[in-house]
Amino acid sequence: MKRFLFPILVLAAAVTLHGQPSRYVDPFIGTAGMGHTFPGACVPFGGIQLSPDTDTIPHNVAGRYQARVYDHCAGYRHDDPTIVGFSHRHLSGTGHSDLGDILLMPFTGQVRLNPGTADAPEKGYRSRYSHENEVASPGYYAVDLTDDGIRAELTATPRVGVHRYTYPAGARQQLVLDLGHGIYNYEGKVRWSTLRVENDTLLTGFRLTDGWARTNYTYFAISFSKPIADYGAKDRRPGPYNGFWRRFDTSRSFPDMAGQDLAAWLAFEGEGPLVVKVAVSAVDAAGAVRNLQAEGRGGFEELAAAAREAWDARLGAFEAEGTEAEKTMFYTSLYHTMINPSVYMDVDGQYRGVDGNIHKAEGFTNYTIFSLWDTYRAEHPFLNLFFPKENADMIRSMLAHQEQSALGMLPVWSLMGNEGWCMSGYHALPVLADAIAKGTFTDIDAALKAMAATAENPLYEGMEDYLRLGYVPFDRSSTAASTTLEYAYDDWTLYAVAKKAGNTDLAGRYGGRARNYRNVFAPGTGYARPRYADGRFKEPFDPLQTYGEGFIEGNSANFSFHVPQDVRGLIREMGGEKVFLERLDRLFAEDLDPIYYKDNEDIEAECLIGGYVHGNEPSHHVPYLYAWTSEAWKTQYWVREIINRMYRSGIDGLGGNDDCGQMSAWYLFTAMGFYPVCPGTDQYVIGAPYLPYVKVLLPNGKTLEIKATGVSDKNRYVSSLTRNGIRHDCRYVTHAEILEGGVWEFKMTAKPDKRALRNAPMPYSLSDPRQDLLRKVLR
Amino acid sequence: MKRFLFPILVLAAAVTLHGQPSRYVDPFIGTAGMGHTFPGACVPFGGIQLSPDTDTIPHNVAGRYQARVYDHCAGYRHDDPTIVGFSHRHLSGTGHSDLGDILLMPFTGQVRLNPGTADAPEKGYRSRYSHENEVASPGYYAVDLTDDGIRAELTATPRVGVHRYTYPAGARQQLVLDLGHGIYNYEGKVRWSTLRVENDTLLTGFRLTDGWARTNYTYFAISFSKPIADYGAKDRRPGPYNGFWRRFDTSRSFPDMAGQDLAAWLAFEGEGPLVVKVAVSAVDAAGAVRNLQAEGRGGFEELAAAAREAWDARLGAFEAEGTEAEKTMFYTSLYHTMINPSVYMDVDGQYRGVDGNIHKAEGFTNYTIFSLWDTYRAEHPFLNLFFPKENADMIRSMLAHQEQSALGMLPVWSLMGNEGWCMSGYHALPVLADAIAKGTFTDIDAALKAMAATAENPLYEGMEDYLRLGYVPFDRSSTAASTTLEYAYDDWTLYAVAKKAGNTDLAGRYGGRARNYRNVFAPGTGYARPRYADGRFKEPFDPLQTYGEGFIEGNSANFSFHVPQDVRGLIREMGGEKVFLERLDRLFAEDLDPIYYKDNEDIEAECLIGGYVHGNEPSHHVPYLYAWTSEAWKTQYWVREIINRMYRSGIDGLGGNDDCGQMSAWYLFTAMGFYPVCPGTDQYVIGAPYLPYVKVLLPNGKTLEIKATGVSDKNRYVSSLTRNGIRHDCRYVTHAEILEGGVWEFKMTAKPDKRALRNAPMPYSLSDPRQDLLRKVLR
Repeated sequence: MKRFLFPILVLAAAVTLHGQPSRYVDPFIGTAGMGHTFPGACVPFGGIQLSPDTDTIPHNVAGRYQARVYDHCAGYRHDDPTIVGFSHRHLSGTGHSDLGDILLMPFTGQVRLNPGTADAPEKGYRSRYSHENEVASPGYYAVDLTDDGIRAELTATPRVGVHRYTYPAGARQQLVLDLGHGIYNYEGKVRWSTLRVENDTLLTGFRLTDGWARTNYTYFAISFSKPIADYGAKDRRPGPYNGFWRRFDTSRSFPDMAGQDLAAWLAFEGEGPLVVKVAVSAVDAAGAVRNLQAEGRGGFEELAAAAREAWDARLGAFEAEGTEAEKTMFYTSLYHTMINPSVYMDVDGQYRGVDGNIHKAEGFTNYTIFSLWDTYRAEHPFLNLFFPKENADMIRSMLAHQEQSALGMLPVWSLMGNEGWCMSGYHALPVLADAIAKGTFTDIDAALKAMAATAENPLYEGMEDYLRLGYVPFDRSSTAASTTLEYAYDDWTLYAVAKKAGNTDLAGRYGGRARNYRNVFAPGTGYARPRYADGRFKEPFDPLQTYGEGFIEGNSANFSFHVPQDVRGLIREMGGEKVFLERLDRLFAEDLDPIYYKDNEDIEAECLIGGYVHGNEPSHHVPYLYAWTSEAWKTQYWVREIINRMYRSGIDGLGGNDDCGQMSAWYLFTAMGFYPVCPGTDQYVIGAPYLPYVKVLLPNGKTLEIKATGVSDKNRYVSSLTRNGIRHDCRYVTHAEILEGGVWEFKMTAKPDKRALRNAPMPYSLSDPRQDLLRKVLR
Repeated sequence: MKRFLFPILVLAAAVTLHGQPSRYVDPFIGTAGMGHTFPGACVPFGGIQLSPDTDTIPHNVAGRYQARVYDHCAGYRHDDPTIVGFSHRHLSGTGHSDLGDILLMPFTGQVRLNPGTADAPEKGYRSRYSHENEVASPGYYAVDLTDDGIRAELTATPRVGVHRYTYPAGARQQLVLDLGHGIYNYEGKVRWSTLRVENDTLLTGFRLTDGWARTNYTYFAISFSKPIADYGAKDRRPGPYNGFWRRFDTSRSFPDMAGQDLAAWLAFEGEGPLVVKVAVSAVDAAGAVRNLQAEGRGGFEELAAAAREAWDARLGAFEAEGTEAEKTMFYTSLYHTMINPSVYMDVDGQYRGVDGNIHKAEGFTNYTIFSLWDTYRAEHPFLNLFFPKENADMIRSMLAHQEQSALGMLPVWSLMGNEGWCMSGYHALPVLADAIAKGTFTDIDAALKAMAATAENPLYEGMEDYLRLGYVPFDRSSTAASTTLEYAYDDWTLYAVAKKAGNTDLAGRYGGRARNYRNVFAPGTGYARPRYADGRFKEPFDPLQTYGEGFIEGNSANFSFHVPQDVRGLIREMGGEKVFLERLDRLFAEDLDPIYYKDNEDIEAECLIGGYVHGNEPSHHVPYLYAWTSEAWKTQYWVREIINRMYRSGIDGLGGNDDCGQMSAWYLFTAMGFYPVCPGTDQYVIGAPYLPYVKVLLPNGKTLEIKATGVSDKNRYVSSLTRNGIRHDCRYVTHAEILEGGVWEFKMTAKPDKRALRNAPMPYSLSDPRQDLLRKVLR
């Protein structure tokens, strides 16, 4: 291996805890069921996710296909019978889809420039494949394409996808390059594409797509390990100007191709494997060539080894004990936290901003794919704790996004230099606040400015009314109740930062807004409920109903708990601890009628624990809310229950979309025994470890060992925790305490010690308990 | 005026010959009939041609509209009843069309986001207008939009179009910005567009078009002299993803718009004129903003004055005497030589190359719009003689194009960072050769390399056969005969450069290829005729027929004379001087049956002089071919005849497409008494001056006065020429002789002195006359 190519990764590898943890990762987990993960090759936070696409259901075909579109967010479904080809960018675990850029497919025999169908792959370039010899591991994927007997292997660098195709001896070695291919493709999603044959081993090109990423520039450069012997192309949807090309036969050996739906074929001479390297850039093809030159040197084996080493360097910061299945789930979850966000920048620092302009990232790495409605909860806190440099660069990327945004807003859903506006809230704020609270991002002034600009934008959903009324009215937004709850929490994070910065004006303003959640709790009901601009609450109202009741992807029974910033205040709103505990208990225990979730693509029966929906994010912190009550031990019960049922080590083992690592980060925190219920504080609420032993190499060089000897489904309760020999009688642990490292010993028991934490300090709440008392006295 | 903005132009203005020659320019000339010119505002070689579009006939409507599409190449037709709006880029005098980018239209009253029709302008945003107060002068255009009573005025800088709209008092001041508008528009020509409201006086955006320029990036920045009070937009062809924008009302006050067919409206508050400045860039919107900042400072009057001064600086290098109509034609022709080629580069030197990549022009200005089939003949030689710096930069632009070209070829038709492949030949070669022959471009090695790469490309039309057979076979190309003639001349220019560089290999190879024209002269006929790969000539064959006989936009009767590099050899091929003269005489005198040109959009009765087609370029040098015969005086007769009939000072006064200045450059050379029959030599064949006096400020600072006292339709013959008092007994004048400057006196007479030049040296021919003699003797 040419080690100079990966000096940082190699260096990092030198300080991992142990050898090859990548062997425990199973990228197939989540590729069936609802996980929406992909099995293909990538490096940690890499801009390339090179993976097989097993179907390409267009967006605008008959409605009955919609579910299948949703199924194919990540391009690959384990139960699909054919592979269409291998494309270079994929979202990991999302509930909406895009990308699938620059598809290659090897073939022998007759040239076919259409993909064909799963029923009749022989009519197109796609192929049947076998799971038998299919291999997926971090940075490597391989499969037999059985129709033509081709072995396909994939690996990746941050900006280059690397293919090795082994054709049958004596067969003509050919490839299709389909620039019209895409995930969630509709007729016209690809607005334009170009393809140039620069020389007999190099292609360059471009495509502009209008997908979920509305204006997505993808330039590329493709090199081959042997010369192109012949090639041709066809624009399957030619425009009227093509007559101008009469001077040439543009269908064959013409090096300057373009079209809206362009597919090309290439033939290569000679025996032996064909290695193809594909670099992308959002700047221009010259940028893609520079990326290729910088990262694409070396043979396939060398690059695959480097990719695996890059993963081992990251994964090796953790050492876990448990059954093989438990270790698989642990390391696979860790793997899934480092696919998205992804690098979105050329090797020279240039990238395309949200304003469409070309920018240079000065002093940071620019990232995209911020699924913030999901990832502010645990994914970013996880990165903030264990990979703070990357998380800080993600924040710098968000600040650049805010500067470039036409609305002057931090990202809501950052996707390939675009704002995808998916889901609600402005949850970049908690990500910034969390990093500031934990000292991993220090430019508070820049953050505060960007946060305030975001939280004051009158154009954003219901904001004008929210500022006036203290809640988003149901007249204005169909998700008015959940949006109000989300805004109030996000506002609290701004309050927290302003307070830290000593900005009393902002702290006052946002401290008030942080309490706006109260405005949607219908008095006497204890449930958040949508409210009209005139002050009335919606009537009738069903807190179990997911549809039409003012909540996004959830019901009031779950979403009413979304007050992480002020659990004490929430308990009061709900009617006191007794009611609060009844409500929590009922949530996990009740037998929810399927009428409440049928046809909801985000809620399926297997994602439910009672009425608790783990497969969707709004409830992720809920099992930890017992920590604010006298029955904190119930958290210990339910978190293990959730892991057992929602994180099964199998292809369909994920109990919902992985959502760019959020589901996985929940698992990792929980498995280690603590969880960031309220990002923006420096606290992690203590639950109960799932694994008997986890050792972590902290970013400050110290190690933390978390021991839960004898933990099991039976021994799931914590009777005590000692940190470095000293008893930790607290319901939470601080960031600083984690960074001290050392040894934590959880004593696990089969029966809860219901008195253990009774007098232990509770986690943060905006409402001061003494003020609560005062209020009670004065009433 | 802020003079620091235009230091170079102001400096140039200081050394002009006289005051305001721009007053003689009539931009309306050619806006009716076949001229295909536009009346709008631009500066010399500027990248902005801001002009009214009077119709936008789509490309793919019923065939009967095709002629109208052709009519609207420049966007404006003087006889159209309505103006659709004002767009920023136009081709000057071409026979094919594109551009019409970034259309603005002022209006009052109800918002309409469709253009409406010429029959019912009130149903859309277009307006009737009046010629009465319509004004066009270099750098300035004004018109009354009568429907809403708005005065529209336009001016330009190299990269910024400037609009001043004066609305009726009390009316709501509004604008339409139609990003779906284009010239030669078809459904889907605009592949994608974006529009951002950066602040209340600045818009930015982008559109990607697939027109004649196949992948055309147009970024823009638009500033307003008063704040935007309200705005909205509509994508008239929305894609399926627009549902994601449900979080906003994207139709109103939403600052981040996009779509395939986007039209926006803007409203402004307050009285007084609205000034709008529109900058473009092919790099990104930030580039457009920089262009706006660099060039867009100052008020409308100031910028219009600067534009006029820029023209006066250029036009003022010439001083002509004649009737008002003659001076109008002279200066208007001069004006038309400096619209295209046009700057294609941001103020910081960045531009988008033919490879789609962003390049920086180091040490030169990058230009585009090279209509080389037309302009190699007289337009580039004209610039080479009088504006050699610009011509040399155009050559550098061509060399950059060659480096970036997927085919490694110099431009055939350079259009906005694209290769348009319009017409035949590789006529960048004569442009390079001419500059090298005349010492205005000195990097011979770079030129020779690019020329050879271009002339050896086996992919290019018929080249493989041409290299094998010595002619392009009719089996391969429908324009095989003319293409062979064109290749042979272009090859000669490479020979000439190779010879100068002392590269005997290349000189030998291309000296041979320069004689390939002979291969398409059917023995004994004296006519070029298409030939099959097996050697047979096409039978039957009609040398007058334009269609299907192997010639592009011309017939054999004209095209057979296309051997400028070897007129002596041509005379021999035709059967000797007697036959050659008969053929020339007949060409000008014969009564061509309309069956030979009906339905040809490039040949109309009024463009004909006998069978000579001046409106199309292949014959432009033909009237000068008498110089190689004993009847040189006939040139003097016919060139005046051509000017009288093809260059009439009126809106429909041009006898054909101006073709980016080629027609105009022919006029200018001819009016001064000489013409570059064979670019690539240093010779200009002497004809007869049309005007009694022309004085030119040469680029070396010297002046040249050309006197033809008493010249008239009657006194059209030259009996003698003295240069600085010394009799010039030669049929041509060299480049160096012109650069000596001084005074030329043509003695004009009513009767030709048929013996005057009998013994005078003939212009260059590849065939050496002594060799001819030797061959005769040996036969």
